[in-house]
Amino acid sequence: MPDDQPAAHHPADVADELERLPAEEGTQIFRTLPGGRAAAVLGEVEQEARPELLEGLTTDELVRVVREMPHDRAADVLADVSPEKRGEVLGRLPQEERHQITALLRYPPDTAGGIMTDRFISLSDDATVEDTLRQLRERGEEWTPDSISYLYAADREGKLVGVVPLRELVFRRPDRRISEVMRRDVQHVWVDDDQEKIAQLFDRYHYLALPVLDRDGRMVGIVSASQAIDVAQEEATEDMQLMVGLSGEERTLTPWQKSIGGRLKWLCINLGTAFVAGGVVGLFEDTIAAWTALAVFLPIVAGQGGNAAIQTLTMVIREMALGELAPQDGWRALRKELTLGVLNGLAIGLLVGLAGYLWKGDMRLGLIVAVAMLLNMIAAALSGVLVPFTLRAMRIDPALASGILVTTVTDVAGFFFFLGLAALALALRWVVV
Amino acid sequence: MPDDQPAAHHPADVADELERLPAEEGTQIFRTLPGGRAAAVLGEVEQEARPELLEGLTTDELVRVVREMPHDRAADVLADVSPEKRGEVLGRLPQEERHQITALLRYPPDTAGGIMTDRFISLSDDATVEDTLRQLRERGEEWTPDSISYLYAADREGKLVGVVPLRELVFRRPDRRISEVMRRDVQHVWVDDDQEKIAQLFDRYHYLALPVLDRDGRMVGIVSASQAIDVAQEEATEDMQLMVGLSGEERTLTPWQKSIGGRLKWLCINLGTAFVAGGVVGLFEDTIAAWTALAVFLPIVAGQGGNAAIQTLTMVIREMALGELAPQDGWRALRKELTLGVLNGLAIGLLVGLAGYLWKGDMRLGLIVAVAMLLNMIAAALSGVLVPFTLRAMRIDPALASGILVTTVTDVAGFFFFLGLAALALALRWVVV
Repeated sequence: MPDDQPAAHHPADVADELERLPAEEGTQIFRTLPGGRAAAVLGEVEQEARPELLEGLTTDELVRVVREMPHDRAADVLADVSPEKRGEVLGRLPQEERHQITALLRYPPDTAGGIMTDRFISLSDDATVEDTLRQLRERGEEWTPDSISYLYAADREGKLVGVVPLRELVFRRPDRRISEVMRRDVQHVWVDDDQEKIAQLFDRYHYLALPVLDRDGRMVGIVSASQAIDVAQEEATEDMQLMVGLSGEERTLTPWQKSIGGRLKWLCINLGTAFVAGGVVGLFEDTIAAWTALAVFLPIVAGQGGNAAIQTLTMVIREMALGELAPQDGWRALRKELTLGVLNGLAIGLLVGLAGYLWKGDMRLGLIVAVAMLLNMIAAALSGVLVPFTLRAMRIDPALASGILVTTVTDVAGFFFFLGLAALALALRWVVV
Repeated sequence: MPDDQPAAHHPADVADELERLPAEEGTQIFRTLPGGRAAAVLGEVEQEARPELLEGLTTDELVRVVREMPHDRAADVLADVSPEKRGEVLGRLPQEERHQITALLRYPPDTAGGIMTDRFISLSDDATVEDTLRQLRERGEEWTPDSISYLYAADREGKLVGVVPLRELVFRRPDRRISEVMRRDVQHVWVDDDQEKIAQLFDRYHYLALPVLDRDGRMVGIVSASQAIDVAQEEATEDMQLMVGLSGEERTLTPWQKSIGGRLKWLCINLGTAFVAGGVVGLFEDTIAAWTALAVFLPIVAGQGGNAAIQTLTMVIREMALGELAPQDGWRALRKELTLGVLNGLAIGLLVGLAGYLWKGDMRLGLIVAVAMLLNMIAAALSGVLVPFTLRAMRIDPALASGILVTTVTDVAGFFFFLGLAALALALRWVVV
């Protein structure tokens, strides 16, 4: 990367350019790329943009590109075309390749199986170092950068029994057996493990690569740190989007025609919750009619509560995604957030109450605002912790629309506490307006 | 990782346990660990928890641990103790180690220099393959897993000129020179590059490791994919937190005493903006007094706008962090979001307007709500795009408090449009209540 410029013609950069073009134009240009180049570029096109780019390609063109791709990328691409076309393309691949790609296609895309590569080097544990080196030299051209650091040793039944760092092969006596030079404490993931868990493992233990095993203990692929970065970024994006009611997959440059459905759906759901909150205000219309100064403080009480709840929620959801909050941490989190809620509530309540007094010259308005604020900050702390922990306990993604959920709680609670206290004060003739 | 259980005694897991204990207790237990083990554990303790754990250690104890750590980790640890103690510890290290750690301490923690390791293998480009292999064998025990995949070749002035994958050394004729077997198109980062940019490079180009160069072109370290995952996760966490007014570094189990300052600061800032919005409502108190049904729809108009703005903002900020939105993409984003804003505004406006009509039997209330909703959705689109692009153009982190900024816009605009239209309707006697 000379002088801070990204490598001008890296496939990832070409893919980026293609994604920014209208679909037909992108397909046209893609067609003009030579086979190997086209394969490299297609492997880098973001998943969201791939179906459009692929739509215009003929079966012939697809076969030509897919044959040049590593199996895992080929499977990703074929997952994005229609079942008919997929069948046609697979039917025209050599048998072995067809089998391998079909095997990868069976794994859900967000599991270890869905992200792993099947390009790894598996050794027999009773071969010698010399045999192994000779074998490797013969297969030299198959090596990909991802599979260089470690070699994996399997027993006669194909079960993973050890890992051999490449440098061990270089520096050991040639007549040593692999079983003598390998490390036996191999960390692994299961083929059906969730990709979020895999990102957590790489983040926590700093692996370069992990072998992927099927439930019989046979090695079926590897996941490398560079794939784990993709996963980590994708999961973080998804969580941020889900929290605010986006699809998890929308991009800024996604055409509006594709975005509008998802956006509108969540805005409608949010509208439903807003009506619930509005309904609470409606219950107290007479109170507001009698004491209109309340209307000024209404959004303040609800808004501050919403803000505090979103702070708590954001922190909890993020740490859940990073695997840093166990279910039993819920109580500790709740204790902390309640403490903060009460203290912040007292401080903010005092400020708002003071403002109410100074603005309207009415001590009692100030007191009612302050107490409502305090109560709503407690509601914020409760919902900010309980909503994500409850969703997770129910095996729902804790990020899913949780932002909308907690602000509904703080809106409803804020309106109810504030207007309810005001109505009470009026009813008891403590306040006369 | 047998049977889905994390390895019971991995240093990262011990670190995690220590972080959950009260600081003094954590320090006590840490003290009992043997030197190498203590170093490994300390390297895994999260930055937020490190100062507390270190506070109780004597200089002797620190020296013992620091000596066992790789230089980059040692520098991270020493950055977290008081300058006096740091000086004492450094003074008691062997000269070479002291120099190397001091060099690393000079780099800001969020740059390539701050995250890189100085453990890499640098070769002379005019050595032969055989010389090199012999050298490597002699230095065998210095190797760390991170430095296995690539070796780096430097010329006589120490400038990086090529990269040699380890396997090239294994399979080449021993009398070949390094300059004949190395690849010359070496991607690199500069020592002062921002860590966010580095995470983007690894995410985009799938590197396993990148060499870090100083501004004279000399190699000073490497950054590996496993460090890039740490960075990616840290940056995503920071962005999510900054957006909602958290410090970027708070954790759920951070003691409340340490959290309250940061939380309260942002709640107060938010309170200030809430008063601005409340002030707008205050301008129209007479309108509300005359027509109290307005109070019910007030939070709905503002809330929906806020929600839409946060959706846009979240998407834009995330893609900025991933390096996927160039400054010139702003117009395209704005066009898309405005289109969505108008369409969603019409749809939501219609729904809310209809609800207004059905609830209150007043067509005119419905119409006013609908128009205000539409206008506020447009304000939401504008602020959701313009706020982050403007902040970035001003070289401010676009995530910083931008959530508070855009919801202030939609609160103020929503209240103003809605109450303004209502006041106008009353003034023109189009509505009589």
